[in-house]
Amino acid sequence: MTAQATLARFREYMVGPARFMNLLSCFELGLIDALRDKPGRTAAELGATVGAKPDAVEQLLYLPVKEGFVEHDETAGTYSLGALADVADVDLQRVLAFMDKIKVTTLRQLYYLTDSVRTGAPVGLRELYGFQGDLYGAMGVHADLRESWSRLMDSVTGRIDPWFFGAIDIPAGAQVLDLAGHTGLGAIHTHRFKGSPGLRVTTFDLPDKREECLRNFREHGVDGESSFIGGDVFDGVPRGFDVVLIKHFLNMFDKAEALKILGEVHKSLEAGGQVHILVPIYAEDLKESRSVDYYPSFFLGCATGQGGPQKLSTFRGWLQEAGFTVTRETSQDPASLPPDALPLQGILSATKNG
Amino acid sequence: MTAQATLARFREYMVGPARFMNLLSCFELGLIDALRDKPGRTAAELGATVGAKPDAVEQLLYLPVKEGFVEHDETAGTYSLGALADVADVDLQRVLAFMDKIKVTTLRQLYYLTDSVRTGAPVGLRELYGFQGDLYGAMGVHADLRESWSRLMDSVTGRIDPWFFGAIDIPAGAQVLDLAGHTGLGAIHTHRFKGSPGLRVTTFDLPDKREECLRNFREHGVDGESSFIGGDVFDGVPRGFDVVLIKHFLNMFDKAEALKILGEVHKSLEAGGQVHILVPIYAEDLKESRSVDYYPSFFLGCATGQGGPQKLSTFRGWLQEAGFTVTRETSQDPASLPPDALPLQGILSATKNG
Repeated sequence: MTAQATLARFREYMVGPARFMNLLSCFELGLIDALRDKPGRTAAELGATVGAKPDAVEQLLYLPVKEGFVEHDETAGTYSLGALADVADVDLQRVLAFMDKIKVTTLRQLYYLTDSVRTGAPVGLRELYGFQGDLYGAMGVHADLRESWSRLMDSVTGRIDPWFFGAIDIPAGAQVLDLAGHTGLGAIHTHRFKGSPGLRVTTFDLPDKREECLRNFREHGVDGESSFIGGDVFDGVPRGFDVVLIKHFLNMFDKAEALKILGEVHKSLEAGGQVHILVPIYAEDLKESRSVDYYPSFFLGCATGQGGPQKLSTFRGWLQEAGFTVTRETSQDPASLPPDALPLQGILSATKNG
Repeated sequence: MTAQATLARFREYMVGPARFMNLLSCFELGLIDALRDKPGRTAAELGATVGAKPDAVEQLLYLPVKEGFVEHDETAGTYSLGALADVADVDLQRVLAFMDKIKVTTLRQLYYLTDSVRTGAPVGLRELYGFQGDLYGAMGVHADLRESWSRLMDSVTGRIDPWFFGAIDIPAGAQVLDLAGHTGLGAIHTHRFKGSPGLRVTTFDLPDKREECLRNFREHGVDGESSFIGGDVFDGVPRGFDVVLIKHFLNMFDKAEALKILGEVHKSLEAGGQVHILVPIYAEDLKESRSVDYYPSFFLGCATGQGGPQKLSTFRGWLQEAGFTVTRETSQDPASLPPDALPLQGILSATKNG
């Protein structure tokens, strides 16, 4: 790459934040909906509809017009949907949910990325919300973070869990531990997708999750075959299980902490027991990775101040180091994902050695 | 553009903020300098040098490695500069000054873009700094904004003013008004680049600029041929001038306000007097405009809550509407700018009609 090409690429980086918010703001203001309802409107008409000055509407629509998302008839001075007219509503809603999540959990927080890396904590949450802790804790207190996150995650979990449970084996009648299982959804899904006579699932998470978790078990009619144990994974994990599930959790930690968790899981499993890990991953060939453009700064600057996705081969190495033999690896096929998808998920199944 | 292509393009927008800050943070932490000083270092060595955990260093370097900015030897586990090794220091410093300006004046503020458009004010400055007013006012109070801005603008003005004064005529002995001339730099440059016997330049700006402006005149030895008049352009402009300069000002306003300013300038000029306008512009063919990716959301969300660059043809139309005949238009040739340059500047010279 020549110096000129590098500098041109830097320009793309420089306009990233402004481009992002310019586009999202067109949706937030209702400009795109207004053009869908009634194409061929002027900036003055659009401004009156969405409650903004025509001058500002013109400014905001320059970029979507440049991109071809919106069309501008210079002679008539009117706007209509361009390429956006052909995007299905379900696709658009998925993208907008993710963009809102980025806006609420990431955009401002990124300002503190360097401080977050230096201190190993998401400084933006402290500066912007006065919150000491990680994003998952902050969501318990701050409705804006929680709502934006949930809107996205509800649809993600709905897609990912069937795929996860389809890719793993859980022996009939097994004793299963769902590590960091939050308020029981993983346990409920285990019963739904892998139900068998005698199957018992225990959700392990911080004690403050107990009440909501038990209520969820009752509401889903699995309270007889499910239980909750409160505790902190770094203080030890309950023992005597055939299967441990670790979903969306190991990637929240740096290697030393992840190995500590896997060590505890190793102790919690019976001989020959299995662990199944669901994690966001980077493609083995970085050049093909989409998630690497977003997740390093998200985890370091906005979520936990540490952790992040890894290559599947890295997670495999960690499992081996912790005394497991990896029996199966699965990753999503990028070609099967929507073109806007950022995360790529991987599953590793492993058996406890000796 | 197919729906698939549109969604893929949306993905580029979604990763914009994270990409921006990931790259900038590598410089802020000193990772790039450390690799320039001594190539072939591991994440552990780099972490020790810059004061960060090796895990975080690895995460932050994934993206520059993907881009080819940095190289990673997977076998040795070491990093070296890739394409970044070939970028001249002067180019890198220019880019980093602009990236810091974007980080400090834009990144967090963009969160409030939609509110800013609805209210016509930069809401982010109120929310983040408790400041009522525009960015230029906020810089007077908040050192972080001022310092980041100045670092960038000192170098920009140094490049732009010689070009501006080379492109305009100022008759010998003319009486010149520098509208919104801040603390006198425009007047000083008028004397430097267009000096002539009898030439007199008056800086017109808010009264609180008087003292610093007069001091600047003295320090540059032009106090005998320069003066300061305090006032607000919307309350009227001093009269009796042959030439009015409007540099980096008209683009801060929506059309109605810009026409009001031009109307006042019309009254301030003698018959046959000339106005010279320096403004950031969008290329006539939007598809070729670089500035349109950044400036709409910057002006609306972060600077003034209104205004923004326009096409040269739009500014021409405004001048004609205000009673001027445009005699000369100049714009920067994008091909002559560095590949990372975002703003494109235009100059319009016009004569007062009748």
